[in-house]
Amino acid sequence: MINKLVILGLGLIGGSLAAGLRARGEVAHVTAWGRREASLARGRELGYIDDFSLDLDEALEGAEIAVIATPTLVAERVLEALAQRDALASNRDLIITDVASVKGNLLAKARELWGSEPPGLVLAHPIAGSEESGVEAARADLFVDHRVILTPTARTDSAALARVDGMWRAVGADVIAMSVARHDEVLAATSHLPHVLAYTLVDTLAQQGSNEDIFRFAAGGFRDFTRIASSDPTMWHDISLANRDALVAMIGEYQRRLADLKAAIEARDGASIMACYNRAKAARDQFAQGRRKPSPAAQPPGIDDGGTDRC
Amino acid sequence: MINKLVILGLGLIGGSLAAGLRARGEVAHVTAWGRREASLARGRELGYIDDFSLDLDEALEGAEIAVIATPTLVAERVLEALAQRDALASNRDLIITDVASVKGNLLAKARELWGSEPPGLVLAHPIAGSEESGVEAARADLFVDHRVILTPTARTDSAALARVDGMWRAVGADVIAMSVARHDEVLAATSHLPHVLAYTLVDTLAQQGSNEDIFRFAAGGFRDFTRIASSDPTMWHDISLANRDALVAMIGEYQRRLADLKAAIEARDGASIMACYNRAKAARDQFAQGRRKPSPAAQPPGIDDGGTDRC
Repeated sequence: MINKLVILGLGLIGGSLAAGLRARGEVAHVTAWGRREASLARGRELGYIDDFSLDLDEALEGAEIAVIATPTLVAERVLEALAQRDALASNRDLIITDVASVKGNLLAKARELWGSEPPGLVLAHPIAGSEESGVEAARADLFVDHRVILTPTARTDSAALARVDGMWRAVGADVIAMSVARHDEVLAATSHLPHVLAYTLVDTLAQQGSNEDIFRFAAGGFRDFTRIASSDPTMWHDISLANRDALVAMIGEYQRRLADLKAAIEARDGASIMACYNRAKAARDQFAQGRRKPSPAAQPPGIDDGGTDRC
Repeated sequence: MINKLVILGLGLIGGSLAAGLRARGEVAHVTAWGRREASLARGRELGYIDDFSLDLDEALEGAEIAVIATPTLVAERVLEALAQRDALASNRDLIITDVASVKGNLLAKARELWGSEPPGLVLAHPIAGSEESGVEAARADLFVDHRVILTPTARTDSAALARVDGMWRAVGADVIAMSVARHDEVLAATSHLPHVLAYTLVDTLAQQGSNEDIFRFAAGGFRDFTRIASSDPTMWHDISLANRDALVAMIGEYQRRLADLKAAIEARDGASIMACYNRAKAARDQFAQGRRKPSPAAQPPGIDDGGTDRC
């Protein structure tokens, strides 16, 4: 049970976390802080939070856990605001966590602000979302059976880690842990790169002459393939910059393989083309099958999931 | 009404066309020809065809329309077999059409075989399919509200064109016409390039170290984005080679834009990143909206749809 939770930025993710914890009786009091009073008032109307404040100090008073639930680059500014207020000094037990899609930029920012990351800072990434955004779209069950990745470092306080782990399990998530660097690489590969590829494809086609024709003959496969190009541009601008290094490395790896396949098609090298398509189909079919199985037992936090902490 | 239709290759597409025409009473007799007797017998069992033959001459006897419904590269071999048998000389009214995803290779093959394409050859491409294949997966309504692109040339007989047009409308398709070159460019952009990109992505990730981890953290967007990488590798190998020139040109255009976006991310050029993502989202949203509207009135065949016949 959390006595007081503060949500810093009340949108889809923050609102859903608050709603989920309240629905399950896992929190006694939820306060929200943000810049847009309308969103905060709406969150209270919907019953997701108990109260709200536009004043950060007031919101943090007596809080056990503060969840930064703003867009990715804004989260850096919130960390700065917390450091300026010395939130960790006046409330030594305060746990600070977040929900951003990239972790390396926030760890770097924390080290810049505090010298080294505070033990009570537990960076986290719930892999859940919706095409909608804002507190209106929040749902108490948004995280059920979704993965949440925690990225503790050697300095992370184990009690703080356990509290954040318990908070996410309480709303139905499968919680696992890995290093910050591994997280950012894995997400660059499975999420950030696909978004870059989809945006690039649709932009390429839109710039072609008579693109109205082009889209007119697109079939169902195109619709699925490009769905993520309808994602919020600001969110993905932030992610692209926040995870710049891992993303640029993944784009580079992709460029090399695309160039190889193009060369094989140009050379009518059927064997290389088949080898690529066969490997891809086998991996995709295995992935699709794996997703239909029940999710594997969640691992305890603190166990690095295959990578090493290179931070 | 078609008196005798011959399906050359009885799979998903050929079987669905036969089933659709029979269900609507638009054909008096359907014969199928192919190499695998089991598929042909199954097609008869399912009531999609009246009879079948393993002998091409026998199958073609007295036919009004022959539909080549084999995989893309096999269709070239079937054209050769038809030319050897001089099918058009012994039956001057025979209309030959097809269902392949690429048109330029078949037109080139016809010109090679006959000197110039026969007036009764009407190349066609129904934009419909399924993740399944084979005659078992055939459905009488597969083409309802799907587009069929006819690619007549200056030599195409207008009566033959009208018969093929009528055949597809009879099974519920929206029929339009454009040049062979335009067809192959449009399909390279909206279908062939996306498949190449999806295969390359999944293959890239599968080759990464500890790829089991990587796929494990993929979310819903990844599932949609990579669905087409589960498509039949042989079919896409054939298409990649048959439409080599247009596909290689589109990959090149895509490579240039991906390199630009990568450079913008590396340079932290937020304005360029936002411009790309905003253009893509606007185009994708418009495409998705357009697809929800009722399909526009089909155009009569013979009217080139925006492109010019550059064959």
